[in-house]
Amino acid sequence: MENFTFYNPTRIEFGKEKEKEIGNFLAESDIKKVLIIYGSDRIKNSGLFDEVANSLKDKNIEFVEFGGIVSNPLLSKVYDGIEVAKANQVEAILSIGGGSVLDSSKAIATGSLYDGDVWDFFTWKSQITKALPIFNIMTLSASGSEMNSFAVVTNDETKEKISIMSPLINPKVSIINPELMKTISKEYLVYSATDIIAHSLEGYLTGTVQPNLINRQVESVIKTVIETTEILIENPENYEARGELAWASILALNGLNYVGTAGFSYPNHMIEYGISALYNVPHGAGLSVVIPAWMKWYCKNNEKQFTKFAKEIFNKDTAKEGIEALENWFNKIGTPTRLSQLNIYESALDEIVEAGLIHAKYFGLSEIYTSEVLKEIIQKAL
Amino acid sequence: MENFTFYNPTRIEFGKEKEKEIGNFLAESDIKKVLIIYGSDRIKNSGLFDEVANSLKDKNIEFVEFGGIVSNPLLSKVYDGIEVAKANQVEAILSIGGGSVLDSSKAIATGSLYDGDVWDFFTWKSQITKALPIFNIMTLSASGSEMNSFAVVTNDETKEKISIMSPLINPKVSIINPELMKTISKEYLVYSATDIIAHSLEGYLTGTVQPNLINRQVESVIKTVIETTEILIENPENYEARGELAWASILALNGLNYVGTAGFSYPNHMIEYGISALYNVPHGAGLSVVIPAWMKWYCKNNEKQFTKFAKEIFNKDTAKEGIEALENWFNKIGTPTRLSQLNIYESALDEIVEAGLIHAKYFGLSEIYTSEVLKEIIQKAL
Repeated sequence: MENFTFYNPTRIEFGKEKEKEIGNFLAESDIKKVLIIYGSDRIKNSGLFDEVANSLKDKNIEFVEFGGIVSNPLLSKVYDGIEVAKANQVEAILSIGGGSVLDSSKAIATGSLYDGDVWDFFTWKSQITKALPIFNIMTLSASGSEMNSFAVVTNDETKEKISIMSPLINPKVSIINPELMKTISKEYLVYSATDIIAHSLEGYLTGTVQPNLINRQVESVIKTVIETTEILIENPENYEARGELAWASILALNGLNYVGTAGFSYPNHMIEYGISALYNVPHGAGLSVVIPAWMKWYCKNNEKQFTKFAKEIFNKDTAKEGIEALENWFNKIGTPTRLSQLNIYESALDEIVEAGLIHAKYFGLSEIYTSEVLKEIIQKAL
Repeated sequence: MENFTFYNPTRIEFGKEKEKEIGNFLAESDIKKVLIIYGSDRIKNSGLFDEVANSLKDKNIEFVEFGGIVSNPLLSKVYDGIEVAKANQVEAILSIGGGSVLDSSKAIATGSLYDGDVWDFFTWKSQITKALPIFNIMTLSASGSEMNSFAVVTNDETKEKISIMSPLINPKVSIINPELMKTISKEYLVYSATDIIAHSLEGYLTGTVQPNLINRQVESVIKTVIETTEILIENPENYEARGELAWASILALNGLNYVGTAGFSYPNHMIEYGISALYNVPHGAGLSVVIPAWMKWYCKNNEKQFTKFAKEIFNKDTAKEGIEALENWFNKIGTPTRLSQLNIYESALDEIVEAGLIHAKYFGLSEIYTSEVLKEIIQKAL
């Protein structure tokens, strides 16, 4: 096992009706004025916004609202949010939504206390030293952002989709009520499943140091994602499955499944960021296209672990059969496994390779993922 | 899944030579004077104490020392420690040792800022509202205390062994360096294994709500304990196995393996506390005697989960075979499975039942664990 530090101070409030306590959670931290950040009007139509507003009013907490965050959230929108936060001198951010809203909220929380350009934090020109406290009500669990220190934003000008990391942007309190997730479309359910599997597989398949205990923990998360996704496709109202999937989302990327590991990388995310920055495809859909292609290319580098994956997850004997089984499962649940299903064709190959090279730089993977390698992988995904 | 709150702010510093950074960790919190609490002189003879002292001196941190904590740590010693802490006006506690030293440290940390009798916190007469910050260097991982909010102390007068719980006694920083554990005796290695298995099994076998994901996580911990203990019996120097066992100790009782569960209880700990309070047997040795006896008695109440345990852990088909396999494994590694191996005989039956009844009160289990039931279980352990 490698040396590591594990510190995750996010408090999770999990379960039915927890969102009704949001006023209490803010009041505990003596917050008097908050910026509510959200995506579409769905949270207003569902009544969730009013419930939150009432809980805040009960505690005499003022709020300002800032909606309109989209999937693959944009830097331009983050800039707007920072302006609203500064103009209104809010003391905290309350995110209501999925990973895109929360990641935008994290960026806004850092930018609101910074005089320069928030993009400096993404491009390593400046370090995060403070942030507004972030409170969060999750309506879609997949990104793991609900209990971690990461945020990913797309620069709409440069088409770079990159991340910041700081314990200062761990949500102070994250509310996970699986009931709020039962209206998620089937498409976004399967994209969520793919994202959680990707967070689990990237480290598991690339790590040069992988303790057995961590392997077991990762496998238990992947098995749970497969099991609960199948249940939820049949019955979206199944609270237990919705809850376990939400908890799997947290375990996959709150740091626990990486303790004591070393040498891992995020090549599938790297390639997908390029694709979704260019074509604005759903992140999970991009991942389910990239993963089988990448696995076919990478497998030779770590055949033992790929064989372990095949055995433990799909009860197959060989690495190749394991990759096939995962691809078949993606097809079965209805998430794409070829770029053509996203209306992206061979003519886009060079552009995707180019985007891959840009992102490889931020992922520290430029040496391995040359344009030739990227082309070879992406060709397998056409 | 049941509603829950998960909040665990302990920072884990894991790996080689981490203890040499202890001065930095205290300095980060601006600590100027600390009480070092430990057990035997082993930590002085090994050089560990000097390393810590040097790290503190480098940061101009004063320290006072308080040694002599024993296994099944005693309230009388906690009282002494509180006096030392108060007299020296220390700002923090630094525990160097295993669970007994750390639990004493936790009790001293609360008692030092309390005017009344610290035992009030154990008997629910008073609530913990403050505690000195606790820093910790673990030399034996088993109790899980290194990343949780519990402490167990034995009242040497009343022979009650009971616990306190508060997030205020979560260690602020816990240092886990598996190298510091390589000199643990074979006896304490197997007792540690038993303790971690007990922490895993109590919830797993008694819970009325047990999400599949949590079952999988618990099983992965138990499998790891079995695997690493066998490796370490053969080769105590195996760093990887030592590290995974230490991490298993944390996962078993830092709250993660209980999220979303309900209805669980701690009957094996309840019975064992009575036994070790009376006869001062090692906690793990007491547990390996109680567990098979309790399992044989309790199995009928949750046969499905016992069968799952048999299948997942030992690849056996029936609950009965699973219990036998665990008992055989305890025998194989050399931890006792009968009271007679601890020199406790049938003549002690009534006394143990009596102690069980006293502890059942604190565990909220008086209705189920009547004197008849306790007698039936303990007879199976003779």
